[in-house]
Amino acid sequence: MITSSSNTNIKNIIALQKKGKTRKEQDVFIVEGIKMILEAPVGRLIQLYVAEGYFAQQEHWADLEKICNYHKIKYEIVADKVFQEITDTQTPQGILAVVRQFHYQLEDLFLKEQPAHLIILEGLQDPGNLGTILRAGEGAGITGIVMSKGTVDIYNAKVIRSTMGSIYRVPFFYTDCLKDVIEKIQKRCTIYAAHLQGECCYEKEDYTKDTAFLIGNEANGLSKEVASYANRLVKIPMLGEVESLNAAIAASILMYEVSRQRR
Amino acid sequence: MITSSSNTNIKNIIALQKKGKTRKEQDVFIVEGIKMILEAPVGRLIQLYVAEGYFAQQEHWADLEKICNYHKIKYEIVADKVFQEITDTQTPQGILAVVRQFHYQLEDLFLKEQPAHLIILEGLQDPGNLGTILRAGEGAGITGIVMSKGTVDIYNAKVIRSTMGSIYRVPFFYTDCLKDVIEKIQKRCTIYAAHLQGECCYEKEDYTKDTAFLIGNEANGLSKEVASYANRLVKIPMLGEVESLNAAIAASILMYEVSRQRR
Repeated sequence: MITSSSNTNIKNIIALQKKGKTRKEQDVFIVEGIKMILEAPVGRLIQLYVAEGYFAQQEHWADLEKICNYHKIKYEIVADKVFQEITDTQTPQGILAVVRQFHYQLEDLFLKEQPAHLIILEGLQDPGNLGTILRAGEGAGITGIVMSKGTVDIYNAKVIRSTMGSIYRVPFFYTDCLKDVIEKIQKRCTIYAAHLQGECCYEKEDYTKDTAFLIGNEANGLSKEVASYANRLVKIPMLGEVESLNAAIAASILMYEVSRQRR
Repeated sequence: MITSSSNTNIKNIIALQKKGKTRKEQDVFIVEGIKMILEAPVGRLIQLYVAEGYFAQQEHWADLEKICNYHKIKYEIVADKVFQEITDTQTPQGILAVVRQFHYQLEDLFLKEQPAHLIILEGLQDPGNLGTILRAGEGAGITGIVMSKGTVDIYNAKVIRSTMGSIYRVPFFYTDCLKDVIEKIQKRCTIYAAHLQGECCYEKEDYTKDTAFLIGNEANGLSKEVASYANRLVKIPMLGEVESLNAAIAASILMYEVSRQRR
């Protein structure tokens, strides 16, 4: 059992929780909670830590055995006090894993059997918004997410938590040059920008063909440059005195309109 | 200028930020940031506090004068260090107001000139979700929100912030007995429950008449009892391995479908 927070692995997990750079260097991220750990694809899980108190409950043993067999790893027990230091949550479940990162190519965001349904995010900042877009996006059948370099790190603990497992299943792609990627996507998709100056109501468009949506930063919306790449600016009508919608809400309304039209 | 955090008003604001009970007793809530303070309806704003650093910028004076004239109040300047203690935000804007609470009757959630469009929340816990539902709800034209007693306090600082001003404009109503209120609403509205066991796709229903949606708690969904009051259980189809949607996302998809049908 690990009883000291000066243990090398423990110190490393604390660094992985805090720093995107460390996660990138080691090509891993942290997942907490039994549900999301059980959903990890085979072989991706490389380290598993359980709190002493979690391990003390015998009903957890079957899950632990299942996870270890599935990924061919061993678990380590951690004193509860030490576990408190490695968790990112206020009420930790007592189980935490180090999981290998994903590496998709742009091509992976297109599927042969269905029209593309892409979300392109420019500088989204809120981890909860990004995680929620992945989760609702999987539900709406998106084929992938493209993110500008300035977008929040998808492996941030809050993003991972709010994906509720969609992180394992929705292909995504960061780019240093959003412009170049948009130009590539434009050869295959109609690109729509959710925009306050949109002339057309979002539901008047036909999304049954290859479709991509541009979604901007929470505070500033889309930059003029990126919005200018859109084939169509669409608007989500807003009644009352509402000036804009939360980015995850706007994205979800659009994604579910695509889903509705394709049903 | 207030320079001590033992000042009575300062101590009171700290209590108002923390405790729903104190807010209720004094019939007020706290609003931060110039944009939301400027949007407060006439006469509702009863105290105004500005940080020393905020006041030092002359371009803020016109706004301050406008607010004070509009609500017939005076502002108080607070030392920056003291302001740090009364703010709920990590990067405070330096302006904070005490605003009088709203008191709606159930009748206020029905308008003469349009069909009802109500959201009924059972035990929603996340402040960001509630605020986001108010904001997206105003945009979608809802006529009001009903909340069970166990729902998060709408005057919680995080709720207020995420409403982006919709708190001033969307009528809402808490009830100790959700069942009784639902029975009253049922006489005038068709009640739909967003439910994983829903038989019908949400978009197949006709929402052009008086409509109310039941939305459950984030972790547990709707209770069986409350779900049983619904006239119709509808489902939001989910692809992939998604088991549920975030409550604010689910509510927004439904509210915007009503909005789409009524356009």
